[in-house]
Amino acid sequence: MTERLYLFDTTLRDGAQTPGIDFSVEDKILITSLIERAGIDYIEGGWPGANPTDTEFFAQKRTRRAVFTAFGMTKRAGRSLSNDPGLLAVLQAEADAVCLVAKTWDFHVTVALGTTLNDNLQAIRESIGAVRACGREPMLDCEHFFDGWKHNRDYALACAVAACEAGARWVVLCDTNGGTLPEEVEAIVAEVARHVPGDRLGIHAHDDTGNAVANSLAAVRAGARQIQGTLNGIGERCGNANLVTLIPTLKLKAGYADRFETGVSDDQLAHLTQISRAFNEMLNRAPARQAPYVGEAAFATKAGLHASAILKDPATYEHVAPETVGNRRRVLVSDQAGRSNVLAELERLGIPADRDDPRIGTLLDEVKRREAEGWAYEAADASFELLARRALGSVPEFFRVESFRVLVERRYNAIGELVTVSEATVKITVDGETLMSVGEGNGPVNALDRAIRKDLGRFQSFIEDLELADYKVRILNGGTGATTRVLIESRDASGNRWSTVGVSPNIVDASFQALVDSITWKLLKAGAAPGRAVAGPALTSVR
Amino acid sequence: MTERLYLFDTTLRDGAQTPGIDFSVEDKILITSLIERAGIDYIEGGWPGANPTDTEFFAQKRTRRAVFTAFGMTKRAGRSLSNDPGLLAVLQAEADAVCLVAKTWDFHVTVALGTTLNDNLQAIRESIGAVRACGREPMLDCEHFFDGWKHNRDYALACAVAACEAGARWVVLCDTNGGTLPEEVEAIVAEVARHVPGDRLGIHAHDDTGNAVANSLAAVRAGARQIQGTLNGIGERCGNANLVTLIPTLKLKAGYADRFETGVSDDQLAHLTQISRAFNEMLNRAPARQAPYVGEAAFATKAGLHASAILKDPATYEHVAPETVGNRRRVLVSDQAGRSNVLAELERLGIPADRDDPRIGTLLDEVKRREAEGWAYEAADASFELLARRALGSVPEFFRVESFRVLVERRYNAIGELVTVSEATVKITVDGETLMSVGEGNGPVNALDRAIRKDLGRFQSFIEDLELADYKVRILNGGTGATTRVLIESRDASGNRWSTVGVSPNIVDASFQALVDSITWKLLKAGAAPGRAVAGPALTSVR
Repeated sequence: MTERLYLFDTTLRDGAQTPGIDFSVEDKILITSLIERAGIDYIEGGWPGANPTDTEFFAQKRTRRAVFTAFGMTKRAGRSLSNDPGLLAVLQAEADAVCLVAKTWDFHVTVALGTTLNDNLQAIRESIGAVRACGREPMLDCEHFFDGWKHNRDYALACAVAACEAGARWVVLCDTNGGTLPEEVEAIVAEVARHVPGDRLGIHAHDDTGNAVANSLAAVRAGARQIQGTLNGIGERCGNANLVTLIPTLKLKAGYADRFETGVSDDQLAHLTQISRAFNEMLNRAPARQAPYVGEAAFATKAGLHASAILKDPATYEHVAPETVGNRRRVLVSDQAGRSNVLAELERLGIPADRDDPRIGTLLDEVKRREAEGWAYEAADASFELLARRALGSVPEFFRVESFRVLVERRYNAIGELVTVSEATVKITVDGETLMSVGEGNGPVNALDRAIRKDLGRFQSFIEDLELADYKVRILNGGTGATTRVLIESRDASGNRWSTVGVSPNIVDASFQALVDSITWKLLKAGAAPGRAVAGPALTSVR
Repeated sequence: MTERLYLFDTTLRDGAQTPGIDFSVEDKILITSLIERAGIDYIEGGWPGANPTDTEFFAQKRTRRAVFTAFGMTKRAGRSLSNDPGLLAVLQAEADAVCLVAKTWDFHVTVALGTTLNDNLQAIRESIGAVRACGREPMLDCEHFFDGWKHNRDYALACAVAACEAGARWVVLCDTNGGTLPEEVEAIVAEVARHVPGDRLGIHAHDDTGNAVANSLAAVRAGARQIQGTLNGIGERCGNANLVTLIPTLKLKAGYADRFETGVSDDQLAHLTQISRAFNEMLNRAPARQAPYVGEAAFATKAGLHASAILKDPATYEHVAPETVGNRRRVLVSDQAGRSNVLAELERLGIPADRDDPRIGTLLDEVKRREAEGWAYEAADASFELLARRALGSVPEFFRVESFRVLVERRYNAIGELVTVSEATVKITVDGETLMSVGEGNGPVNALDRAIRKDLGRFQSFIEDLELADYKVRILNGGTGATTRVLIESRDASGNRWSTVGVSPNIVDASFQALVDSITWKLLKAGAAPGRAVAGPALTSVR
């Protein structure tokens, strides 16, 4: 009944063209797992041979289910295949599929490539053939296809047909400069589909007129069955088609959900908001609040005309249910709404709370005050849990950091090498006993972390398996009055992962707060028995 | 030949529903002048009577050329016009036009309004008649028109026709919850246009599926001649149709520019980038770098592949000329850069370079090697310039930092307060003379910056006006092997702004590198004379 639509992710290739974005091999590995979590069919990892990062990334297969795809160019005119080292590097990459780009606008072929129209067609045929011969799934990206079509329709079409006849699984029509409008895409794809079967046609759209999503949908309506795009719509200039926006439309909206099937399960769809935000975190970008489906404001309504009606009957005001994409409704009306949010959070964390407990109001005020200062509890569950448990009852003071000192020194060492050394000392009290430790690290925070965790007295055994999994810094407001927010993710041998936050103008101080929260949470969860009551103020208590 | 298209701005009404945005009367006055500069026909200023701000804003006419429009609701069912104070307040406002919203989805009429379908039609007729009687131009916003159409086509249409017959200049079809897709909008508007003349039909789209722009264009293709939207697409949930994106498409792109005329002059179009950014400044928001047409990245390229061709013939890679919308072309240096990017950058920075100089290749390799380590030169012009000048000739060593030491200490002070103190000492050599300085700050980097800039000997006068404008940190890969990248933006009294970068596992070290680059660049630009050769043994004074 339904036809299969294939999703092709080019976050790691075209997305890497985004100004301000650079991916390391480690970044690419992490992002690949994120794309796989979204249930996308193809992952284009980069251009092996073009730069050291991409070459290393393609030294092994990096996907588990998705078709791992290498990008490259068709062979150069006037050279034999075996004499084109660029193409050979692509063919030798550990990829399941190879997507080659070719020029299909006659002007670019003759002027930019300096070759003949026929030689270019021949290069397409031979290159696609070579991909097949290597046992990889071949695809052709038709560069500037729509502009090419407008200037020389026969030639653009000839390129697409040549690839198809040479055995390309997909012939992808690229709107390289992003200038084509939806009605043009729909008409041109429909024409092409008369010569190349739709189930072998793809669309690659850019957002230069704000129509990347609409152009992708228009191509699907006209017959294309592969959509190329990126997570959160990153990409060259104004970005590529945003897969995070397209997926819910394809999965949920009439005209698509009833006609097509994708590789994205309902459960994967329900994690889309989380995936989109995790990607922003990786990029250290503030998420777009107004992003379709997944933005914080996507299902938010301000006090006014619609708010009360929405509470009565959400379905008549929301075009899809927020939960289907892992988002949630927000009605920005009153303190009461905030109170319900806090109560829902406590319930989720398993913290018993009475609806009418006045301490709930105190906790809400504290959260609001801190969030205004830059704390972000949405991304730091463990710190929120500690804050809530302290407000509602008490969190034992397992240990107390009396003081710390961190030194960073850059100097020439005894054999004349320039070195930077970081060292931290901490003074901790456990059960009234003072413990002093010193640690070295590759930076001030690393040294401090080592020193704090070196000796916690009788609690030491509880934190032996604690590890820092991730560390993020964001400068909240530029210039001299800047505030620093540090988010730390920790993990232990049992597979627990928890996040904590610290905020201060001083990055070492902010890191210290997040580190202490992480250790305290771990001790709490491990059921460590609290120490004797200690008099006097402590560095680690919340006031 | 061409038909007139009308642009209707609702930044001050629907845009004011954006979470996090609140406008004062002064804000509204400023934004009105900004909207007028864009050449927009109608400005909807708010809802007089609904809140004190809007009532005050409508106490006088606020536009010079644009039609000043008040928003309101049609009269309440079961009341006479004269007994509906809400509507009377709107009719008494100092407006040229009045846009009334009415429910057109049968379900909302009967359930939410609790009235009959006929009474609602009667309210539309009477209310539009009342607007006419007051000498204002009448318009009807048909709330939930597309959903209403899908549920009860005849009734939705009856509402539109009733408004038209009662004399509404415009009948605006609103996709209130933003869930309608372009092909549906096009089909439905085409049907409606058989009953209401297209030159009296408007479209009001929201971006909940990422199609607000495409939906607006689809409606125009189907016959509508008024487009409602906002500056930069602000608005409830995912925002309204972005007029800043729509205007260049309507003015420049085939299929629109040749068929339609708008109130926006070419000169106003050429100020669009400036208007969009000024609006972001007013909202205190970072501009969207990837915004179509006006974003900083909208005409930026970092691919080596395209960069060389763009320089040869921009028109074949850019769908419109950046200058037409007041933006500019950018060719960025990066990992992906080829020789042409580097040459283009050198030219832009005014660094003389010979195309065939082998040192260009060395520089390119160095850039690639460093970017693989995490350096990002595209966001750090000044560091790139120093790197390039060092590769191609020489940058004098104005000063040398022999060593530095940074201390961060958290402890109780003498009067029992908890304090965190940051202190830095540096040892610098200038002209063979050693200078030692110490600085305090609110964090380790701030302390180091103060110490370094405290005494640069005879260069001190050149850096007196140097200021840090922004400081950004990014952890490039999480966990223990993390690398830190620091970007610093500096400025001086002459209004120069420059950016530098540093990379190290140690955040203090990375910051140090960026700080030293910033000072060196400033000395270079200020024309400071490099160090003299020192005759005889150097006198070393310690201050």
